[in-house]
Amino acid sequence: MPESKILIIGGGPAGLEAARSISDIGYSAVIVEKRDSLGGTPNEANYAKLTHHFKDAGEVFDEIVRNVTESPNIEVMTGSEVESYEGQAGSFKVTVKTGGKTQVVEAGSIIVATGFQHFDPARETQYYNYYSYPDVITIADLEGMLKSGNLVRPSNGKAPEKVAFIQCVGSRDRQIGNEFCSKVCCGISSKQAIEVREMLPDSKVMIFYIDMRMYGYWENEIYWPAQEKHKVNYVKGIVSEILQKGDRLLMRGEDTTMGRPMEVEMDLVVLAVGMEPSAGTRAMSQTLGIDQNKYGFIAAGGTSGVDPVATSVPGIFVAGAAAGPADLDDSFTMGGLAAARAVAAMRRVMA
Amino acid sequence: MPESKILIIGGGPAGLEAARSISDIGYSAVIVEKRDSLGGTPNEANYAKLTHHFKDAGEVFDEIVRNVTESPNIEVMTGSEVESYEGQAGSFKVTVKTGGKTQVVEAGSIIVATGFQHFDPARETQYYNYYSYPDVITIADLEGMLKSGNLVRPSNGKAPEKVAFIQCVGSRDRQIGNEFCSKVCCGISSKQAIEVREMLPDSKVMIFYIDMRMYGYWENEIYWPAQEKHKVNYVKGIVSEILQKGDRLLMRGEDTTMGRPMEVEMDLVVLAVGMEPSAGTRAMSQTLGIDQNKYGFIAAGGTSGVDPVATSVPGIFVAGAAAGPADLDDSFTMGGLAAARAVAAMRRVMA
Repeated sequence: MPESKILIIGGGPAGLEAARSISDIGYSAVIVEKRDSLGGTPNEANYAKLTHHFKDAGEVFDEIVRNVTESPNIEVMTGSEVESYEGQAGSFKVTVKTGGKTQVVEAGSIIVATGFQHFDPARETQYYNYYSYPDVITIADLEGMLKSGNLVRPSNGKAPEKVAFIQCVGSRDRQIGNEFCSKVCCGISSKQAIEVREMLPDSKVMIFYIDMRMYGYWENEIYWPAQEKHKVNYVKGIVSEILQKGDRLLMRGEDTTMGRPMEVEMDLVVLAVGMEPSAGTRAMSQTLGIDQNKYGFIAAGGTSGVDPVATSVPGIFVAGAAAGPADLDDSFTMGGLAAARAVAAMRRVMA
Repeated sequence: MPESKILIIGGGPAGLEAARSISDIGYSAVIVEKRDSLGGTPNEANYAKLTHHFKDAGEVFDEIVRNVTESPNIEVMTGSEVESYEGQAGSFKVTVKTGGKTQVVEAGSIIVATGFQHFDPARETQYYNYYSYPDVITIADLEGMLKSGNLVRPSNGKAPEKVAFIQCVGSRDRQIGNEFCSKVCCGISSKQAIEVREMLPDSKVMIFYIDMRMYGYWENEIYWPAQEKHKVNYVKGIVSEILQKGDRLLMRGEDTTMGRPMEVEMDLVVLAVGMEPSAGTRAMSQTLGIDQNKYGFIAAGGTSGVDPVATSVPGIFVAGAAAGPADLDDSFTMGGLAAARAVAAMRRVMA
């Protein structure tokens, strides 16, 4: 077995799966994670249940993290960042900073799994007033509430009677420059709508959308039950602004199916914020000298143009949402393919 | 290196990628393919350009097939089917029939990559008359025409002036029992609409849809250019029947955005047929004794519930559209993860 190992930047779903796969096929990996613990955004953002499986996120990620930390083939460096590198496929020398100290890690190949960050509603082009109205929250905020079991209006601590989700906040939006679709927000919102209805059976829940992108099994596993079993009300419409009215929120917009203006009062409005490249994804693209696409995600494709995990630099691969909007299945499967490619690249040079 | 190898059933995108990954990480694979050549449905159905990259499908798959056939670690058995198996993870004995002869292949693990088949419009619940009207075709039929460069109305051999796509034929349809969304048809139809407009610049092209599911980069790479650059006309509407009117087709239905009945005449109507489990996927589920979901696809999830390539039997994995609607990226990445899992399962038993 070769001495050399594979360096993985990022300890979220894609990075963890890549590490696990590398270890399982008999090679060694080192994970460099900026945060103080593994689990990535699902962990940091307190995901409650997973889309689409409704499995407990904590349990699922605890198991994966345990697999990784218990493996003798995987070294984990938390609180650490890649500062620079030199060399090429088969013999990278990567300078990693932990606390104030730096060390050089030798790696046969590199996997970038630095993920995404939620779109910041401060940049929204509509007038949703996320930073002004406490009862305007994001799907990330709601996920934390669902996890804690304490679902209330931040303004008064009471359970909301009427809850609305607004889709495509920071996605499919040319003014902001995010023309892409963030892929997962329709499914996450619908999953959360079901959970809200289960937790607060007297609540009314509406989802305002452009297109409901419930691809594959999300359609039958989430979208149909949301409507039929849980009585979530889907409205094809555009919300143009949110105003305070007494102690409620007034949503103004257009019901595009009915073709008429719309005004509805809500207790809690949830913004389905999309995905943007994380600070780490932007930084690592620069540090490693790999191409980004126009949105700042890492450009995948490689020489064939169709390799989902190849970057512009041989021996450096990408997995998960660092390459663009990705669901959990995407992150796991890209992690697996990146692991295979990374081992292959290292073996090729050493052969 | 262990003597044992991994048996892959199916030589389409997922199976080819799995084989390539296994070979690249230093293990051996044997592909059992029922057809006489590799490449799966993209090859058999004469895919022209790939969704979403617009790369030439022939070139892309020629390269992947070449990688596989040139690898000394991969054996390819075409015209062959798995008849039965015995044993367990680490020591499967699989009986493969080629022509009239059978042989037993020893395999450490098994990957099922038996793919999908296009929904047969004979089972549609609307009245689209695919089998009666020559100018009603499917996206698979159109793909072949685009590949041959001969885009005409089958009824008279002339170029169509007005072309309509109808989405969700055989998908999102409870009457048929296919409640799921087939994930790729919106993107493929939009890609084809662009190609039709490029090939026949005077044509008018419309797409009738429920929701346009252009997730991730499909939104900016296909959907926006289709509308803005290529002037494809998207109509949120339901087509209830197609009738012959003179030498044209009369489409009747409802424009759900405008909220009014709709009648439009077309020269060519393209049914965006969805995905169903292939005969091979159904047969292999039975032969191998692995769980199917209610649609006949192979149930994935494994013990964690969230493993995209684990089946109900240890040592047997699934990749690509055999597990449900999948795009090309899904097939490649699942192929990679399944390769890692299959090698790991084999190593674990041999350790």
